[in-house]
Amino acid sequence: MSDTSTAQGGRASRLSGTVRIVGAGLLGASIGHALSAKGVDVVLSDTSPGQLRLAVDYGAGRIERADDAPSLVVVAVPPDVTADVVEAELARFPEAVVTDVASVKLEPYLVLRGRGVDLSRYIGSHPLAGRERGGAISARADIFIGRPWVVCRDGETRPADLALVEGLALELGATPLEMTPEEHDRSVALTSHVPQVVASLLAARLADAEDSALRLAGQGVRDTTRIAASAPELWVQILGANAAPVVEVLDALAADLARVSDALRDPERGGARRTVAEAIRLGNEGVERLPGKHGQNRRFEQLVVMVDDTPGQLARLFGELGELDVNVEDLRLEHSPGAQFGLAEISVAPASLRGAIEGLEARGWRIAGTTND
Amino acid sequence: MSDTSTAQGGRASRLSGTVRIVGAGLLGASIGHALSAKGVDVVLSDTSPGQLRLAVDYGAGRIERADDAPSLVVVAVPPDVTADVVEAELARFPEAVVTDVASVKLEPYLVLRGRGVDLSRYIGSHPLAGRERGGAISARADIFIGRPWVVCRDGETRPADLALVEGLALELGATPLEMTPEEHDRSVALTSHVPQVVASLLAARLADAEDSALRLAGQGVRDTTRIAASAPELWVQILGANAAPVVEVLDALAADLARVSDALRDPERGGARRTVAEAIRLGNEGVERLPGKHGQNRRFEQLVVMVDDTPGQLARLFGELGELDVNVEDLRLEHSPGAQFGLAEISVAPASLRGAIEGLEARGWRIAGTTND
Repeated sequence: MSDTSTAQGGRASRLSGTVRIVGAGLLGASIGHALSAKGVDVVLSDTSPGQLRLAVDYGAGRIERADDAPSLVVVAVPPDVTADVVEAELARFPEAVVTDVASVKLEPYLVLRGRGVDLSRYIGSHPLAGRERGGAISARADIFIGRPWVVCRDGETRPADLALVEGLALELGATPLEMTPEEHDRSVALTSHVPQVVASLLAARLADAEDSALRLAGQGVRDTTRIAASAPELWVQILGANAAPVVEVLDALAADLARVSDALRDPERGGARRTVAEAIRLGNEGVERLPGKHGQNRRFEQLVVMVDDTPGQLARLFGELGELDVNVEDLRLEHSPGAQFGLAEISVAPASLRGAIEGLEARGWRIAGTTND
Repeated sequence: MSDTSTAQGGRASRLSGTVRIVGAGLLGASIGHALSAKGVDVVLSDTSPGQLRLAVDYGAGRIERADDAPSLVVVAVPPDVTADVVEAELARFPEAVVTDVASVKLEPYLVLRGRGVDLSRYIGSHPLAGRERGGAISARADIFIGRPWVVCRDGETRPADLALVEGLALELGATPLEMTPEEHDRSVALTSHVPQVVASLLAARLADAEDSALRLAGQGVRDTTRIAASAPELWVQILGANAAPVVEVLDALAADLARVSDALRDPERGGARRTVAEAIRLGNEGVERLPGKHGQNRRFEQLVVMVDDTPGQLARLFGELGELDVNVEDLRLEHSPGAQFGLAEISVAPASLRGAIEGLEARGWRIAGTTND
């Protein structure tokens, strides 16, 4: 989107005031890095002096001063203390807009409302960004680029305040997306919280499995359980704070699971094979709907080129693709240990595919296949 | 694995006779490619003339002749016809050892026994290798390298015949692993078949989700559901043929799921938070036991380089890595739609990391991070 850079440029001045970030963990420190790099005055605060020092040392911002008057406060603390910290920041900085980046949006909002807090300056938000590793040490300015950043406005929200929070998202390369807290929580239950539960429970079944069984594990189970490496403390909070939408999806999933189990248990019953086939087919459909599929982008065509395992070969390949005026949109190198060559899976615009194949073959490259074979 | 290559060298002569492969799909054609490359006489057979011609054209083997007398027959057909084809091949080639590569081992064995077939020359096997895409066109000689290859011997199996099948595995770079059919089927239920069901059912919940929910999908749900793209026809067969062990794991998983659901539904009940925490923690433990964690090859270090989204930039990057004498072991390009640049995650030998970072930075590249930050 070319408008991202325009927006970034246009909005830069919006964040010319001081931005205060409470919580110097992965998200807080990453926001701090990105804003500091753009010359924004960033104040960091954290209950852990060690975490704070680390984030400051790494350039995510500065220590607070008594006379700080932030125009924007970003609360980046664990979900179960988000409401408390938002309330305290609203009280302490009566001129500031306060946002938070917690991955659950309804509960903190309801807690604040329940306490009668004036929410006209509070705008909940949630950048869909993260890494498996947490903490200031893992922070990176680029984790928001191209990611959605949900912003929950309220009836009382002033347009200028909304623009400030959306400007923050744009500044970091993210795409602001307005949702209600309920809509957000239902969505992440489906696309984030339930996948976490499922991955964890599946991985948990491996915890006491026989060694020989684990030796047979391949990429499939590794991918399916990758996020099971996430931190229990954080996830108990997230799941607890979004329990109702999560339970709704889990119950539906349990019913689906029982249907497949029953069909496998009693294959002679009418429609049993069809039940199983239908589950797999519907899974095909669901995975097709995910944006940016793993390893292949559907807007592009893929071709697979064999590349000798010697330095300089990739340079030659990309040099020649450049000569052919082919832009590489995505790329994945498969490299089996022991093999004499790797396979470069290259994504190109559909209009470039034919020329890329012919041009590369004319230059002696071996095309192992194309995705649409 | 240095012992693999020794074994490969040592065993090459074992396969000096003709190897007949029935079924020129992904596994059959891949075995054909690997053996043909080593000079073994490979005969291919397939019920689909088109598939067969493709595999032969690509160099996976030759068409059969009336006087072929294979020493080894590899049956690489779908699970539901495996027993029939094994029986036919045993009858047709009374001097040959017959193996199969189906991903379920007990059912074909029991079917053959039930028919009173003499199984002294049959040794079931299963290479834990594959790709999401099937067919001869996707075949690759290197997919077996470093993977386990389960071999199921029988009381009647002759040591020389066992050595022949294990020699095939070693020849292709795989590691033979002896198991009983029951042990194999229980193991793959846990590490392959149930993950498939879970990924499919989770992805199926996305099939009719709101568009806005899908916009929030990130790498977590993409990884968790990746294998849901698999073919329904094949999986109905596999799950049907391994129903009992699969149902056992599915039932245990359903009980775990119900426990977490109940805890989330009624958080005030004693131990509810602990139930959730324990599920996530046990998931941590399970995923730690998996060999070769996803997304990072632990033998290599990763660095992430920012690459402008213009033709020629990757060529320049790889050209300069070549000048720096850095071999790229693995590579992943992250390219968010809308961003002005991509992130190239490059895996290099640990000894090359420092030089790669310094050399690239000296040439003006921006290093967004290294995996071990």
